[in-house]
Amino acid sequence: MPERIIVDGMGGDHAPENVVEGAVQAANDFDLEIILVGQEQALKRELHKYKVTGGKISIHHASQTVGMGESPVSAIRKKKDSSIAVSIGLLKAGEGEAIVTAGNTGAAVAASTLNLGLLKGIKRPGILISIPTRSGISLAMDVGANIDPTPEHLFQYAVMADIYARTIFKKRQPAIGLLNIGEEEGKGTDIVKETYRLLREADLNFIGNIEGRDFFTGKADCIICDGFVGNVVLKVTEGLLENIGGLIQKELTKSFFFKIGALLIRPALINLKKETNYEEAGGAQLLGIDGVVIISHGSSSAWAIRNAIRKAAQVVELDVNSHIVQHFSQKDILKDKAKNAEMTESHFVDKASQSPISTELKG
Amino acid sequence: MPERIIVDGMGGDHAPENVVEGAVQAANDFDLEIILVGQEQALKRELHKYKVTGGKISIHHASQTVGMGESPVSAIRKKKDSSIAVSIGLLKAGEGEAIVTAGNTGAAVAASTLNLGLLKGIKRPGILISIPTRSGISLAMDVGANIDPTPEHLFQYAVMADIYARTIFKKRQPAIGLLNIGEEEGKGTDIVKETYRLLREADLNFIGNIEGRDFFTGKADCIICDGFVGNVVLKVTEGLLENIGGLIQKELTKSFFFKIGALLIRPALINLKKETNYEEAGGAQLLGIDGVVIISHGSSSAWAIRNAIRKAAQVVELDVNSHIVQHFSQKDILKDKAKNAEMTESHFVDKASQSPISTELKG
Repeated sequence: MPERIIVDGMGGDHAPENVVEGAVQAANDFDLEIILVGQEQALKRELHKYKVTGGKISIHHASQTVGMGESPVSAIRKKKDSSIAVSIGLLKAGEGEAIVTAGNTGAAVAASTLNLGLLKGIKRPGILISIPTRSGISLAMDVGANIDPTPEHLFQYAVMADIYARTIFKKRQPAIGLLNIGEEEGKGTDIVKETYRLLREADLNFIGNIEGRDFFTGKADCIICDGFVGNVVLKVTEGLLENIGGLIQKELTKSFFFKIGALLIRPALINLKKETNYEEAGGAQLLGIDGVVIISHGSSSAWAIRNAIRKAAQVVELDVNSHIVQHFSQKDILKDKAKNAEMTESHFVDKASQSPISTELKG
Repeated sequence: MPERIIVDGMGGDHAPENVVEGAVQAANDFDLEIILVGQEQALKRELHKYKVTGGKISIHHASQTVGMGESPVSAIRKKKDSSIAVSIGLLKAGEGEAIVTAGNTGAAVAASTLNLGLLKGIKRPGILISIPTRSGISLAMDVGANIDPTPEHLFQYAVMADIYARTIFKKRQPAIGLLNIGEEEGKGTDIVKETYRLLREADLNFIGNIEGRDFFTGKADCIICDGFVGNVVLKVTEGLLENIGGLIQKELTKSFFFKIGALLIRPALINLKKETNYEEAGGAQLLGIDGVVIISHGSSSAWAIRNAIRKAAQVVELDVNSHIVQHFSQKDILKDKAKNAEMTESHFVDKASQSPISTELKG
């Protein structure tokens, strides 16, 4: 049976146009069953523009939309029939296996956390993103769900990113790096220093602190950071790449020879753009939630939506969440064993198993 | 009388070679008096390679060097005769008006703070950097001196950056932006939110939160952030630019036509590199210290050192520090007036004037 992917038809700067186009592409290319959620008339109008040659697309009506600039918490409280809220309801009811949304990230995080809950053992969800580097794909987590994490949250992000890298990218011993202001142990804030300690003691291939300059070199397979830093880094990168593109274009119009040269190297630049394009990676995952929620960029093209849907199907198929739950329950077993044998376990595991699952959200 | 600039001859990845070469260039180009501090024999050997045609260069011996990877605090404690410690001693003794160092940043910050002290009214020093943007030079502060700032520290950084932009870059109403994960008020950590409140109430051209994507657009003349985020952003940018350069070069070797095209556009790329080059800006300033301390990149070229020395002379000439002291003492006057007239002053100014100047340093 093909995976059933619920797509927030109204989420994003170019919704529903790009979302519907991307959904059609995904249905045709990957033979998936797609449920588009949102205003029926608007979605139908878009859908009629395309021919669905494979897979299956249906529409599920939702009367409201959460705007990109709306306050997540109040939007979730007030708009019970928004496309994102209805999408989550459908997932919960078992009508689909995953959600893809390019809408208001804060609202998606808040609604998912409150209504789907967290995976057993996980304290806070985080957003994991794939980044193209010199030596393949690396992962960074968190890039915006949790701007005030504790060391335990960051530690759990490392564990989840490790499982993701093994499961989705088939990496054998993913190198885990902690984003910091210097490579030496003892650098950074108290929270980062305590996270370092937890990671060093864990059963992970922890390579220590990594500096910003190694964000895109592939030195670490998984880069762990708080959501504030991760969010700023992503957006700085986006802005920089846009600016450089503009600057190069501006320079290249300054002389006739430059224009000829630019024409000659155009295919190389297009290829480069493709190689460094986030859209290929197919969205970020809100990890730690009891459900598969893929968050695509607000300005997603149809191609980005298509790839996000592909990623959603892949995460469902390879069952990343089960691996995470299994990992954390094994940790519990270890702890119980340790208790029975009167052995000491690490400070972290004890603390983790005692505190209740928190679903409160910041900002 | 020409400005006398003290240059840490042993600081940096390519010291003393690049430092001495840059010092000679600065002496020749700007008719300055330069005191090179460090191991006499090594400095003499380098100095003999060049001809000093203007200005004046002397050598002041210091037997020790703080390594780039050394722990700042222990290095400052143990190496009393290091080139950076001796440089600071010379500044304090009035032998020069400013220091330029490309050495261990942490050591420079720690030694400056402890031995030179802070400007009256300033709670913590911060590193201010000039960044080339689409519409000219912007400033960012702090990029690494203070990774755990309070809202008051961040507020003071905004005031100092504002004064710097007015004094050095002749900007009339510098736009002050607070780096955050979203533009809306109410975004960010508690510290960022409280800083927002302080800035909104202040006599500054505060334009609100700015996101990472506007770091290089020139939307804000002064970008305020904590030292952790600022440091990571700078290093990510460096890494990204290096990677892109490498990727472009790699792509351009893939076909004969690309190679021809690359030759044709070479001058455009060189110009672009120059326009986006941090080295042109001439180093960062450790602002808030009672003294002028310019911190240059560890991997500085001779050209970067030359420009950092030029910047040092400029900051001395335009007397940025006096403007800062004047500003904060005016605030005191205002406060006294307010008290006498039983008027209320802002929460921040009251708090600022009551707490003692703190010279403790983190990490």
